[in-house]
Amino acid sequence: MNPSEPLARLDLGRRQRLGMIEAIWGETKDADQITTILDRLHQAGELALVTRVSAEKAIKVEERLRLEQPQIAAGFEHHRQARALTSGALPSADPALGLVQVLCGGTSDLPVAHEAQLALRCHGVTTELVVDVGVAGLHRLLEQLPRLRNARVLIACAGMEGALPTVLAGLLPQPVIAVPVSVGYGVSAGGVAALHGMLASCAPGLSVVNIDNGYGAAMAALRILLTLRGAAAADRPSAAPRC
Amino acid sequence: MNPSEPLARLDLGRRQRLGMIEAIWGETKDADQITTILDRLHQAGELALVTRVSAEKAIKVEERLRLEQPQIAAGFEHHRQARALTSGALPSADPALGLVQVLCGGTSDLPVAHEAQLALRCHGVTTELVVDVGVAGLHRLLEQLPRLRNARVLIACAGMEGALPTVLAGLLPQPVIAVPVSVGYGVSAGGVAALHGMLASCAPGLSVVNIDNGYGAAMAALRILLTLRGAAAADRPSAAPRC
Amino acid sequence: MNPSEPLARLDLGRRQRLGMIEAIWGETKDADQITTILDRLHQAGELALVTRVSAEKAIKVEERLRLEQPQIAAGFEHHRQARALTSGALPSADPALGLVQVLCGGTSDLPVAHEAQLALRCHGVTTELVVDVGVAGLHRLLEQLPRLRNARVLIACAGMEGALPTVLAGLLPQPVIAVPVSVGYGVSAGGVAALHGMLASCAPGLSVVNIDNGYGAAMAALRILLTLRGAAAADRPSAAPRC
Amino acid sequence: MNPSEPLARLDLGRRQRLGMIEAIWGETKDADQITTILDRLHQAGELALVTRVSAEKAIKVEERLRLEQPQIAAGFEHHRQARALTSGALPSADPALGLVQVLCGGTSDLPVAHEAQLALRCHGVTTELVVDVGVAGLHRLLEQLPRLRNARVLIACAGMEGALPTVLAGLLPQPVIAVPVSVGYGVSAGGVAALHGMLASCAPGLSVVNIDNGYGAAMAALRILLTLRGAAAADRPSAAPRC
Amino acid sequence: MNPSEPLARLDLGRRQRLGMIEAIWGETKDADQITTILDRLHQAGELALVTRVSAEKAIKVEERLRLEQPQIAAGFEHHRQARALTSGALPSADPALGLVQVLCGGTSDLPVAHEAQLALRCHGVTTELVVDVGVAGLHRLLEQLPRLRNARVLIACAGMEGALPTVLAGLLPQPVIAVPVSVGYGVSAGGVAALHGMLASCAPGLSVVNIDNGYGAAMAALRILLTLRGAAAADRPSAAPRC
Amino acid sequence: MNPSEPLARLDLGRRQRLGMIEAIWGETKDADQITTILDRLHQAGELALVTRVSAEKAIKVEERLRLEQPQIAAGFEHHRQARALTSGALPSADPALGLVQVLCGGTSDLPVAHEAQLALRCHGVTTELVVDVGVAGLHRLLEQLPRLRNARVLIACAGMEGALPTVLAGLLPQPVIAVPVSVGYGVSAGGVAALHGMLASCAPGLSVVNIDNGYGAAMAALRILLTLRGAAAADRPSAAPRC
Amino acid sequence: MNPSEPLARLDLGRRQRLGMIEAIWGETKDADQITTILDRLHQAGELALVTRVSAEKAIKVEERLRLEQPQIAAGFEHHRQARALTSGALPSADPALGLVQVLCGGTSDLPVAHEAQLALRCHGVTTELVVDVGVAGLHRLLEQLPRLRNARVLIACAGMEGALPTVLAGLLPQPVIAVPVSVGYGVSAGGVAALHGMLASCAPGLSVVNIDNGYGAAMAALRILLTLRGAAAADRPSAAPRC
Amino acid sequence: MNPSEPLARLDLGRRQRLGMIEAIWGETKDADQITTILDRLHQAGELALVTRVSAEKAIKVEERLRLEQPQIAAGFEHHRQARALTSGALPSADPALGLVQVLCGGTSDLPVAHEAQLALRCHGVTTELVVDVGVAGLHRLLEQLPRLRNARVLIACAGMEGALPTVLAGLLPQPVIAVPVSVGYGVSAGGVAALHGMLASCAPGLSVVNIDNGYGAAMAALRILLTLRGAAAADRPSAAPRC
Repeated sequence: MNPSEPLARLDLGRRQRLGMIEAIWGETKDADQITTILDRLHQAGELALVTRVSAEKAIKVEERLRLEQPQIAAGFEHHRQARALTSGALPSADPALGLVQVLCGGTSDLPVAHEAQLALRCHGVTTELVVDVGVAGLHRLLEQLPRLRNARVLIACAGMEGALPTVLAGLLPQPVIAVPVSVGYGVSAGGVAALHGMLASCAPGLSVVNIDNGYGAAMAALRILLTLRGAAAADRPSAAPRC
Repeated sequence: MNPSEPLARLDLGRRQRLGMIEAIWGETKDADQITTILDRLHQAGELALVTRVSAEKAIKVEERLRLEQPQIAAGFEHHRQARALTSGALPSADPALGLVQVLCGGTSDLPVAHEAQLALRCHGVTTELVVDVGVAGLHRLLEQLPRLRNARVLIACAGMEGALPTVLAGLLPQPVIAVPVSVGYGVSAGGVAALHGMLASCAPGLSVVNIDNGYGAAMAALRILLTLRGAAAADRPSAAPRC
Repeated sequence: MNPSEPLARLDLGRRQRLGMIEAIWGETKDADQITTILDRLHQAGELALVTRVSAEKAIKVEERLRLEQPQIAAGFEHHRQARALTSGALPSADPALGLVQVLCGGTSDLPVAHEAQLALRCHGVTTELVVDVGVAGLHRLLEQLPRLRNARVLIACAGMEGALPTVLAGLLPQPVIAVPVSVGYGVSAGGVAALHGMLASCAPGLSVVNIDNGYGAAMAALRILLTLRGAAAADRPSAAPRC
Repeated sequence: MNPSEPLARLDLGRRQRLGMIEAIWGETKDADQITTILDRLHQAGELALVTRVSAEKAIKVEERLRLEQPQIAAGFEHHRQARALTSGALPSADPALGLVQVLCGGTSDLPVAHEAQLALRCHGVTTELVVDVGVAGLHRLLEQLPRLRNARVLIACAGMEGALPTVLAGLLPQPVIAVPVSVGYGVSAGGVAALHGMLASCAPGLSVVNIDNGYGAAMAALRILLTLRGAAAADRPSAAPRC
Repeated sequence: MNPSEPLARLDLGRRQRLGMIEAIWGETKDADQITTILDRLHQAGELALVTRVSAEKAIKVEERLRLEQPQIAAGFEHHRQARALTSGALPSADPALGLVQVLCGGTSDLPVAHEAQLALRCHGVTTELVVDVGVAGLHRLLEQLPRLRNARVLIACAGMEGALPTVLAGLLPQPVIAVPVSVGYGVSAGGVAALHGMLASCAPGLSVVNIDNGYGAAMAALRILLTLRGAAAADRPSAAPRC
Repeated sequence: MNPSEPLARLDLGRRQRLGMIEAIWGETKDADQITTILDRLHQAGELALVTRVSAEKAIKVEERLRLEQPQIAAGFEHHRQARALTSGALPSADPALGLVQVLCGGTSDLPVAHEAQLALRCHGVTTELVVDVGVAGLHRLLEQLPRLRNARVLIACAGMEGALPTVLAGLLPQPVIAVPVSVGYGVSAGGVAALHGMLASCAPGLSVVNIDNGYGAAMAALRILLTLRGAAAADRPSAAPRC
Repeated sequence: MNPSEPLARLDLGRRQRLGMIEAIWGETKDADQITTILDRLHQAGELALVTRVSAEKAIKVEERLRLEQPQIAAGFEHHRQARALTSGALPSADPALGLVQVLCGGTSDLPVAHEAQLALRCHGVTTELVVDVGVAGLHRLLEQLPRLRNARVLIACAGMEGALPTVLAGLLPQPVIAVPVSVGYGVSAGGVAALHGMLASCAPGLSVVNIDNGYGAAMAALRILLTLRGAAAADRPSAAPRC
Repeated sequence: MNPSEPLARLDLGRRQRLGMIEAIWGETKDADQITTILDRLHQAGELALVTRVSAEKAIKVEERLRLEQPQIAAGFEHHRQARALTSGALPSADPALGLVQVLCGGTSDLPVAHEAQLALRCHGVTTELVVDVGVAGLHRLLEQLPRLRNARVLIACAGMEGALPTVLAGLLPQPVIAVPVSVGYGVSAGGVAALHGMLASCAPGLSVVNIDNGYGAAMAALRILLTLRGAAAADRPSAAPRC
C-alpha cells in the first residue's frame, strides 16, 4: 500500500448529514483493524459501534485495548447477545423519539433483535423486546397487541417462512420493518425464504431490509423517528429544523 | 413413429392399484391428442379427467366430439373455472369418505382450488370452498374456524407469501395440504416464494405439493380419505379391505 | 362453487384498523371480476383502487360500467400512466400528512412511480415526482437535493443496478423506501439485480419493497405519515389518537 | 433484554389444540438454552422433544442436567441416531393409531428417518424402518411391497435424485409423505434436486415436506392418524370427537 | 456488415473429422437465413438437417424453395413431429451400426424423441420408439424390458421429475443417454428439475445432455455406434481406418 | 431401529445385471459403517470400492481392519489421490475392452480424474491420464491429439468455465464424457458454471455427468466398452452375449 | 405528473465528461417517448442513438417523424440488423482511434454484434465483423488469427457455452471484451451459462459485459481507444489532454 | 498416474504469446504441489506468481524452500495482504505503461485490491490504492477525482451492492474494470449482488471480471496498457510492434 494511505477513511460527517453515527461492520475485519478504527473514532470524539463481532474477536480486542489503550478500554463494552462492541458513552434515552418494539418469531432470532436494539440505543431510542410470537401459535401474538400499540415503529424479526411481519402488518397501523433471519434449513437455510415471504407479503406497507440486518432495520426506524421528531419540532415555534 | 406404437399407453390399472383414475395433463397436448385419449378411455369404460385445458382448446375438443363422436359428447363437460374437461358420468358423493374444505387466500387462487374440487368430485368426495381468507385480514380466517372443523382434510391454496396454510395448521389439527399458487410478481412471480414459505413453515405437519397443483393436492387428500375409509371398514366385521 | 360463497370477501375493516383502503390487485382478475368488486365497494361507500390493470382491461371495465352501472361510472377514473383504476371521489390533500417525493432513475420507471403517487393521493397525501436522476449522471441528482429536503419520506424507484436509493440515503436523513423496478435485460431482467442491490446497500437505513411494488412503497410511506400525524396530534391537548 | 421477558414463550396449548407436543428445534440453541427449556417443560409436566442436536451438545446438556437437575436427568434420553433429545416418559404405543412405515433410499438417509420415527413414538405411534430400497436396484423395493401394505401412512426419505417416493406412490394407495434428504453432491448437494424431483413427481398424490424435515413428515403423518382415529371413534356411539 | 463476409461459415469438414453432418439450429434463424444455408449445403453436396423449426417457418421455407430453387425443393422434407427440416437424400440404414431405442415418459416428450430419431436416421442409424413408460405406472416399463435388450444404446426422454432413465439404468447394462424435457409446471417448468434429477441419479453410468436436446443425445449415441463399428472393423483384417 | 433390519441392503446382483460392482459412496458414512460394509462385501466374495473417503477416515478404517479383521486388511488399499478405498483383488486389465483417456484442464481436477481411473481399473479397463490441457493454452491440447486418437472413450474433467470437452469434441469423433469439477470461485464455485457450459456446448454429442462425478463418468464409459465388447463378441461365432 | 416535469432529463454533458453520447435504451419506451427524445436531442444539436427498437416500433417512429418533424426525419436512420435508430449525421471514421474487430460464435449472435458496431461507428471508430468462428470447429477461428492481430480491441459475442472469448484470449494479447448472448435453450436460455463461462474463464484478462449488451461492449472499447488516443497525443508536444 | 506424466504442464509460452506470465491459482493446491511448480518455473527462468494462498500454506511453502531449495528461497516473497507468493525478481516499473488506480469501497475489499496491485507490479505496472470511497459517503469519492484523472485504467473493487464502479464510470472517461468482492451477508453473501449490480450498471462502458478476481482485473488492465504502449511505439519510426 502507498504509505500515505490511511487504513480507513471514516465517514465522520455522517452524524451531521444523516443524524447517525457510522457503524463498523466487524465480520471481515480482524482485531487489529477494529482496534485501529476504535482509536480513530475515540480521537474524533465519536461513539463507536462495531457489529457482527464473534465472542473470540471481541475478547481479543478488549485485551488489546486494556494493555495498550486503557483510556479507550474504560468506555469499551462487549454486547455479547448483540454480537457487537461499543466504545464511548451511550447517550441517554430521548423520550421525544418514542418507543420501538422489536419482535421475534423465536429465540433463534434473538441476536438480530439485540443488534437492532443496541443500534437504536446508540442513538437515544428506547426499545422493548417481544419474543416467541411466531404465527404457528397465533394466540401468543394476539395477546401482545395492546402492548404493541404503544410503539411508533415495529421491527419484526423472523426466520423459517417469515410470516410474522405479514400477520402483524395486517393487525396494526404503524410502520413495520421486517427483518428476515438466516434461521432454518432446507429451503429456508440462509434466510431467503423468509426474505421472499416478506417482500411478497399480501399485507400492505411492509418494508424489508437484508437478511439478519438488525442494524439496518434500526437505522430505518431511526430515520422515521428523527423525521417525526423534526416534524413535531417544526410544528412548534422554537424548533430548529432537523436537516 | 413405428406404426404399431399407440399414441398413449394409458395406465388403466391405476384405479385398481391406487383407487384413482388416470388424469390427463392437457397443457402440452393439442385438441387431436386429447380427443384420441378421450376415445380410448371411453372405450375402456373409464371416467376421463383432463386438466389444464384452455377455454379455446376445450371448445375445439367439444366441437370435434359433437361432429365425430356424439356418443362421447353426451357425457362430455367443460369445467371452465377449473380449466378442465371430464367425459363420462361423475360418481355420486360417497358420505363415508367425509368432507374436504378447500381454502383460498384470494380470488386469484380460484382456478387451482376449482381443479382440486373437481378432481375430488371425480372420486366421489364432497368439498366446500372458502374464499378470501388471506392472513392480511386475519379475522376473515378466524370467523371460518367453526366451519373448518367439519373437514377431514384441509387444502389451502395461496400465492404471494403463502402464509395461509401456516396460520391454518397452527389453529386446526387436521391434515393440511398446502398448494402454492403462481400468483404474484417480483419475488413471488411463478409461486416459488409461496412454495418455499410453505415448506419452511414453522407450523408442524404441513405437507406441500407443486405450484398450482390442485389435482395433486386432491389426490393427496384422496389417499388419506381412502385409507381412512378402509381402516374404518376393516374395523367392522364385514368390510373388505381397500388395498 | 357452493352458491352461497361470495366472489370476494372484501376486507372492509381495513380503513378502520390500518387507516388504509383495501386495494385490489387487478393483474389476474378479468373485467367481470373487477366490475363486481367495484360494485361491492360502491355499495359499501368505500373508495376503490384497482392496480395493475392493462389499458385494454380498463376500457372493458369502463364500457361495462357505463352500460350497466352508470352511477358507478360517474366516479370511475382510468389512470393510464399508473395502470390503475379508481372509483369514488379521491380525498382532498391533507397538509398535516406532509409531502412525499417520488424519484425515478429513468423514464422506464414511471409506471411504478405513478402507481405510488396515485396510491398516496387516494389517502390524501401530496406527492411530487422527480424523474431521470439516475446515478450515471450524478449531477442530475445533486441538483435536486434542496428540493428533496422538503419531503417527509422519499420513495426511490430504479431498475438496472438500482443504485439510486443507495446514493440518496447517503445524502439525506429522511426515510428512504426503495422500489426495485423490473426494467433491464440479462442479469437485471425482472428486477432482481436492483432488488438485491437495494437490500445489500451500504447506505444505512434503506428499506425495500417487492419489485415494481409502487403501491406497497406508498403504503409504507403512509404508515410513517399516519404515525407522524398521530404523534403530532397526541402531542397537543385536543388530538384524538389515530390508532 | 428487558428483565421481565422470559427466554422462550412456549406454546404449551399445542397438545390441546393440535394433539401434538411442541418440539424444540435445537440446531441454533446452545446447551444453556436447551437446559432452560427442558426445565420449563418439565415444570409444565409436558414431554420434551428437542431435534437437531449434535452429539457434543447432547453430552453437555446431559452433564448439566445430572449436576444441576437430577430430577430431569432421570427422564432424559439422548437418541444419537435421531440426533435428538427427549425428557419425560415416552407414551406407550396406541394400536388404534395404526402403523407408519419409514423408507430410506440409502443408509445416508437414516438420521432423517430416525427423527421421523422418534417424533411419532413421542405421540404413541408404532413405526417400522425399511432401509436401502433405492430405485437403482428396483427389486429391493418390490420385495418389500407386501410388508408395506400394512402401513396406514408411508414416509419415504431420499436424497440424490429422490425418485423413491415417486415409484412408491405409483405402486401403493396409501398417503405417501416424501422427505428430501440433503445427501449428495454437485446438483444434488443440499437436497434441492430431491425436493424438486418429489414436487414434480408424475405419481399422483405425493405430498412433500422441507429437506431433512423428518419431524415435519412425522407430524403430517400424525395429523392423518389422529383424524383417522377421530373419525373411527366418531363412527361408534361412545367416542368423543377429537377436534 | 462488410460485404465480403458470408452469412454463415459452415463447418463442412465436420463429417470428415467427426463422422457427423453439421446440423443447423433453426430456432433463432428466419426463413431467409435457413433458405440461404440450405442452398449452400446443397451446393456442397451435403445433406442438411435443420432442427427447432416451427410449422409456420417450415412452410415459408418450403414455399420459397418451390418458387426459387426447385432443384432443392425436390429433396426437401418437413418432419413436423420432429420440428425439423431435411434437404437431400437420407442415407439408407446401416445394420452394422445397430439399433437405438428411444424411450419417452409421456406423449409430451414426443417432439424431443422424434428429433433424436431423425438425427440418427440422417446418419444411417435404425431407431425404435417406446412411448408412455413413465415410472408412475412401473409395469409399463417392465413389460418392455425384453425388447429394450436389443438396443446398443438407450435414449430416455423425460420431463417432470425425470426418473425414467434412473430406473432404466438400474435394470439394463447398455449406455443410457438421459434427455430432460421442458415439460411440467411449477418447479419442473423449463426442465431443470428433470435435468437435476438425471445428473443426481443414484443409478451408475447415466450420462445427460441439455434440456430438450434430442439432437445432442442422438450425436452422443452416434459417437458410441461409430466407435463400436470402427472397433469391430479394426478387429477384422480388411478394416478401413477409423476417422 | 427394528433389530432385524440390516445396516445396508447391498445390491449384490448389480454385477450380474449391469456388469458393474456396487460402489459405496463414502462421504456421509463413518468408519464404522464403512467397515461393516467391507465385511459384508468380503463375505459375499465381491470386490469393494468406496469413493469420497477423506484421508483421516481412510486411516481409521484401515486401523480397524488391521486390528479386527486382518483377513480383509490384507486385500485393503487406500488410493489417496483418488480419495477412495478398495478391498479385494483388482482384476487384471482386459485388452478387449480398449483404452480410456482421462483428460484434466488443470492439476486441481486430478482427484476427480483419479477416481474415474480407479473405478475403471476395478472393472479391468486400461486408462491413461492427460493433465493440464486447459484451453487457455490451446497448443497443449493440440499436441496431444495423436495420442488421444487411440482411446475408445474420452473422459474430460474441467472446472472454471469447463470449455475443454467442447473443444475436444469438436476435434475428435469418439464418445466424450464431460465431468464438471467444483474448482473455481465466484460464479464458478461449486462447479455449476462448468456444468452449464458443458450441457450448453455447441459441440455435437457431448454427454455430461454430475459435478465431480468421476465414478459416474467411469461407469458411463464402462457401459460403452461392455456394449462394444459384447457386440464384437456377438459378431463372432463363439461369443456369449454379454447381456 | 406535475406539469413542470420534463419527460426526460437528458444527460447532455456526457460527451463533454466521458467522450460519449447518451444512448437511449428503447426497449421499454413507446414510439411517442422515443420521438420526443429525438426531438430534444435534435434541438440540442446532439447525435441520437436509440438501441433495442423492434422493427414495428422503428416504423412507427419513422412515420411520425416524416409527418410531424420532417427536419429530423431527414437525418433519421433505422439500422434493422442492429435493432437501433440514429438521428443526425454519423461522424466520419477517425483513423487515430484504431480498429475494433467484432467476433461472433454463430449467426444468431449477429444482432448483438451489429449493435456494438453501430455504437462504435457513432463515435468514429472503424470496425470489422468476423462471423461463425465458434469453437466447435476450431480451424475457423485459427484461420482468422492473422487478420485479428490488426485490431486494438477484440469484442467477442457468443451464446451457448460462450467459450469463444476464452479460446481467443488465450491466443491473442489485445483487450478482449466478452459479450454473452441470450441464444440457447435449456441451461443456456437467457445467456446465463455463457455469462458465467466468460466470468469463470481460465484465460487471463477477459472482461465481460451484461448479456446481449453490444452497446456496453462498444463503450468499454471506446474508453480504451480514447485513452489510447489521449495518451498518444499527450506523448507529442501539441496534443490537448482528453479529459 | 502414468509415471511419465508431469505434475503440471506449464504454459511457458504465455509471456511470448500474450505478454503475461502464467499465474498459479494456489487455492486448491497443497504446499507440495506449489513447491514443485515454483521449482519448475525457477528452472525455466520465469518469474512465479501464486495467488490465493493462505498464510498457513505460505509458511509451509517458505519453510520447505529454505530447507530444500535455498536458491529459490532467496527470491521468494510472501505478500500477506495480497494472499500471494512470488518467486524471482520483480521487474522495475515501466513508466511507458502508465498508472493504474485501484479503488476500494471499504477495507474489506483490500485483499482483492492488493492482489490486483501485485499482479500488475509483476508486469512492471505502477499502481496506486484509493481506499474507503464507498458511495454511501459520496464526498469521499468526489474528493479523489483530480487524483483519479491521472490513471490510464481504473480498477474498482466493491462488495455489498457494488455501486462504486457505476458512480465512477459516470464521472470519468477512462476504462473502468469492476471487481465484485465477496463481502456481505444475506443477499450480498458471496458477491453475486455486487456482480449483478456491476453487469447491470446504467453507466456506459463498465467491464466486469469474476467475483474476487483481482488478478483477472489486473490482466485486463495490462492488456490495455500493452496495446497502448504498442500503439504508441508503432506511432514512432523505431518502435518494434508488440504482438
